[in-house]
Amino acid sequence: MPNKELISKLFQNDKRAVSRAITIIESNEHRSTQILKEIHNRTGNAYRIGITGPPGAGKSTLTNQLTKYFRKQNKTVGIVAVDPTSPFSGGALLGDRVRMSEIGNDPGVFIRSMATRGSLGGLSKKTNDAADILDAAGYNFIILETVGVGQSELDIAKAADTTIVVLVPESGDSIQAMKAGLMEIADFFVLNKSDRPGADTALTAIQTILMLRDHTEKDWLPVILKAVASENIGINEIAGEIIKHKGYLENNDLLKYRREEKFRLRIKEIVESLIHKEFWHNENLSTLNDSLKDVVEGILSPYELAENLFNKYKSTTISKG
Amino acid sequence: MPNKELISKLFQNDKRAVSRAITIIESNEHRSTQILKEIHNRTGNAYRIGITGPPGAGKSTLTNQLTKYFRKQNKTVGIVAVDPTSPFSGGALLGDRVRMSEIGNDPGVFIRSMATRGSLGGLSKKTNDAADILDAAGYNFIILETVGVGQSELDIAKAADTTIVVLVPESGDSIQAMKAGLMEIADFFVLNKSDRPGADTALTAIQTILMLRDHTEKDWLPVILKAVASENIGINEIAGEIIKHKGYLENNDLLKYRREEKFRLRIKEIVESLIHKEFWHNENLSTLNDSLKDVVEGILSPYELAENLFNKYKSTTISKG
Repeated sequence: MPNKELISKLFQNDKRAVSRAITIIESNEHRSTQILKEIHNRTGNAYRIGITGPPGAGKSTLTNQLTKYFRKQNKTVGIVAVDPTSPFSGGALLGDRVRMSEIGNDPGVFIRSMATRGSLGGLSKKTNDAADILDAAGYNFIILETVGVGQSELDIAKAADTTIVVLVPESGDSIQAMKAGLMEIADFFVLNKSDRPGADTALTAIQTILMLRDHTEKDWLPVILKAVASENIGINEIAGEIIKHKGYLENNDLLKYRREEKFRLRIKEIVESLIHKEFWHNENLSTLNDSLKDVVEGILSPYELAENLFNKYKSTTISKG
Repeated sequence: MPNKELISKLFQNDKRAVSRAITIIESNEHRSTQILKEIHNRTGNAYRIGITGPPGAGKSTLTNQLTKYFRKQNKTVGIVAVDPTSPFSGGALLGDRVRMSEIGNDPGVFIRSMATRGSLGGLSKKTNDAADILDAAGYNFIILETVGVGQSELDIAKAADTTIVVLVPESGDSIQAMKAGLMEIADFFVLNKSDRPGADTALTAIQTILMLRDHTEKDWLPVILKAVASENIGINEIAGEIIKHKGYLENNDLLKYRREEKFRLRIKEIVESLIHKEFWHNENLSTLNDSLKDVVEGILSPYELAENLFNKYKSTTISKG
């Protein structure tokens, strides 16, 4: 399908075109850039929700319930589930089968898994790109879901207007290990599976950590909402908190500001990927390969070789001009 | 302390100088580059062991026991514990107090925690740099320890000659979530806390996943060693396997090859950090800031703005020449 046809079908929310466009984002950088340029002026209407948290916190169950909630309000929902631990493109995430059977046949819902490990430009670039596709296709809400490991939760936050961190009573270790990252990005928390033992202890632990947090937006204090997503308990409150946060951002002119900041990071990433491609042409790769032996033997330090390559690149650019 | 004095003390393994040099790596990129260039021809003698695995697998206990083992063989040991989840420099890792009381007063052991979250150049660059410092200071073995979340286990593998992945019987979920990353980097596995229920099931699970793995080095098949590190059970076997793997790499000329590959990645990262700094000078940042409004309003796509910046950079470089 040529780009023009694909984009025209995308604007009509043809699900096959949406799916195809996301595959292009995963696999064909040149073509995906062309498409993303063309559709940009049709984006910015969807509200983007990030959902992250440790493995097993019930993120996809929560996504499903929120989707059903929004559907009852006649809003359409696009879902991108990002798996930062898998290098396999197009692979299905755990829980995808359940998810598909519950909401996958609803014409107002689009679900897609993306595997991003090791992808050029990283998780946040691809997530943003996929969200743009769903935005241009006209979905009202976009849910971006990822397991919070390492930097992935930061990347999801870079693409979302509201970021929800999902924890469970048992995730004491995870809270400890991930607290720095998860605490700084959460617009609010969901303590899922809160009917399990230890819920109150976990609640106190999160509250304690929250008190240590620097609030960049002084007027918004992240709450912790209890839920049992699998039994649809607490979903109304979570959806309500999303809408409340959306209103807060809009009324304080923060939505635009936040989106500007997110575009700033995103543009920087794109520029760096362009430079990367320009830099590692054959000649520089040969120089690198030829000099590696000297580095291993201690004759040349990696920093010297890197500077040599960098300086040579600058002079090559000049002579080409 | 001026660089010359610092480096001279470093070569005498003055622990304060070693510690100071690693602080410079964490905090002062310009000075750290100078030092790393100076010491490069004194590196390459230490053997570098990477230890990674999910939170709670007992990585620091294993590190301690291996350290005590190597000390009995009259080998010195430098340890860098990298915390990819914390943005706080100099912060102590969990278990650090225990560690310090057990081996911290031994003059043949150096222990250091590094926080790398959000650091420019990333975890693998800083880990490699810190390992170089310990190498130049004359430590025989360097243990690089990190919790395997997201990409951090790949980064540790980029800095190590032998990479050990530590799992526990309970880490079923983690094995699932991290298997792609952990399986592709392990030179061998340790099933720690193997006196706990489910050890045999976990062993079978790891073996099954291992069978699916592509072996780049056909002659080396990663084994799974059972251990109870806290009771010093299985440590001799683990140390033996490290030495066996070291011998395998040396006898097949693979140690040099692996180190070349690691330098290749490292040099690429350094070059990109140089370009990054060169690119984002004030003028380009102003252009970016001034155009962000147009991007949010849909007039200009992020990809167009990125290309404009990139093309402007190239022409600026030319006119400067």
